[in-house]
Amino acid sequence: MKNKLLEISHIRSCLIRMEETIIFALIERAQFKLNDIIYKVGAFGSEIDQNDSLVGYLLHETETIHARMRRYTSTQEKSFFTDLPKPMLPPLHEDHSTIKPNSINVNDEIRHIYEKETVPQLCEPGDDGQYGSSSVCDVTCLQAISTRVHFAQLVAESKYLENKEKCDLYIKAGDDESIMNLITNKKVEAAVIDRVHKKATAYGQDPGSETETSKINARIVTDLYSQWIIPLTKKVEVLYLLQRLK
Amino acid sequence: MKNKLLEISHIRSCLIRMEETIIFALIERAQFKLNDIIYKVGAFGSEIDQNDSLVGYLLHETETIHARMRRYTSTQEKSFFTDLPKPMLPPLHEDHSTIKPNSINVNDEIRHIYEKETVPQLCEPGDDGQYGSSSVCDVTCLQAISTRVHFAQLVAESKYLENKEKCDLYIKAGDDESIMNLITNKKVEAAVIDRVHKKATAYGQDPGSETETSKINARIVTDLYSQWIIPLTKKVEVLYLLQRLK
Repeated sequence: MKNKLLEISHIRSCLIRMEETIIFALIERAQFKLNDIIYKVGAFGSEIDQNDSLVGYLLHETETIHARMRRYTSTQEKSFFTDLPKPMLPPLHEDHSTIKPNSINVNDEIRHIYEKETVPQLCEPGDDGQYGSSSVCDVTCLQAISTRVHFAQLVAESKYLENKEKCDLYIKAGDDESIMNLITNKKVEAAVIDRVHKKATAYGQDPGSETETSKINARIVTDLYSQWIIPLTKKVEVLYLLQRLK
Repeated sequence: MKNKLLEISHIRSCLIRMEETIIFALIERAQFKLNDIIYKVGAFGSEIDQNDSLVGYLLHETETIHARMRRYTSTQEKSFFTDLPKPMLPPLHEDHSTIKPNSINVNDEIRHIYEKETVPQLCEPGDDGQYGSSSVCDVTCLQAISTRVHFAQLVAESKYLENKEKCDLYIKAGDDESIMNLITNKKVEAAVIDRVHKKATAYGQDPGSETETSKINARIVTDLYSQWIIPLTKKVEVLYLLQRLK
């Protein structure tokens, strides 16, 4: 019997629910200005930011706590940092056979894109002094996007089980182009983009207000999905399948 | 000239924007089951939860990082824990004359109410194993509610400046009942409740879905506001004013 976690209806409902998490997090970040200083290493001249920016510091500290709480024992969760402590909670009796363990991690790309492409479009330029609040929102956004993108491992495993023979053939040949074609569904991609646009528009509006101003530009969310989240998801799927038989 | 931070239009827009932060955070928590175990001290038998629950551990660790990032140097931000490290970032050149420094802190009440009243209504009963994710959402909810409630210090200071003579009279007499009457505006309270109901309804709906199911019961948000957030806000206002002249 197929693992419930790999059923396409389950995967789809998880992915759809993650859209809210990402959009809410982006709306929260958008209330603060760009605050460029929080992305610069050493900008505060303190112990905190001597090796990474303020956002990097907070991300690292957050992952340290989450690692102790066993976040990264879940095979589908990937950390941005590698120097994390061991879990301090006893292991979960989790079924680890859902996906194949692997070393895929596109978080460096996610962080780069988020900081260089998304935030400068999402936020008003300038500095409002809200460095802590902005950094907290950034960490939430980064983790939400990372979880969404690396969920692709489950998507890929599910697609593999549906097309085992064809997949095995392509994987053995190292034919990443055919794998990419196999996992690509333009209709589903268009539906995702259409849906996140609707959501960003709806959640950006303030139903208690007389004005039409939105808390977020819906186009930024659709751009993030079409230019980065969907392509990175497919990249993870291909990477996962290419090492699937090892 | 009156401090801009104390202008009623500024205060109002801050309070309205915080509604989104609270409602988004509650919607995020509502996707997971109650997971009662995360509120029990020692439930995991680990170093982590020997002195507090898993949520308490995460809240404490989060405040430790935020304290280093100077969150609690802002007079209006109040921490749930007292054993926090000194800020590691250089101090902000902030105007500390906006409100009078004070020791008001109703976070114990907020945590009690949130864990005992709000979460059991907000979440489906049961256990889905999502302990880390649920705890992360709880910390976000607790901090958002705390910020909203302790913002009352600014509200009170603003009202004080508008009614200086009357306030001074009541404060000197220690007349908390008259102070409570002075700061109470039933019309505004009703408008807040009406607005958060509209928002919770709008943000709870999934515009991409064919079904009418909501991610949150809007009544829980209005209950939280009418039974707890508004009364606690007024309590902080009265406490603030009673010590205003000291």
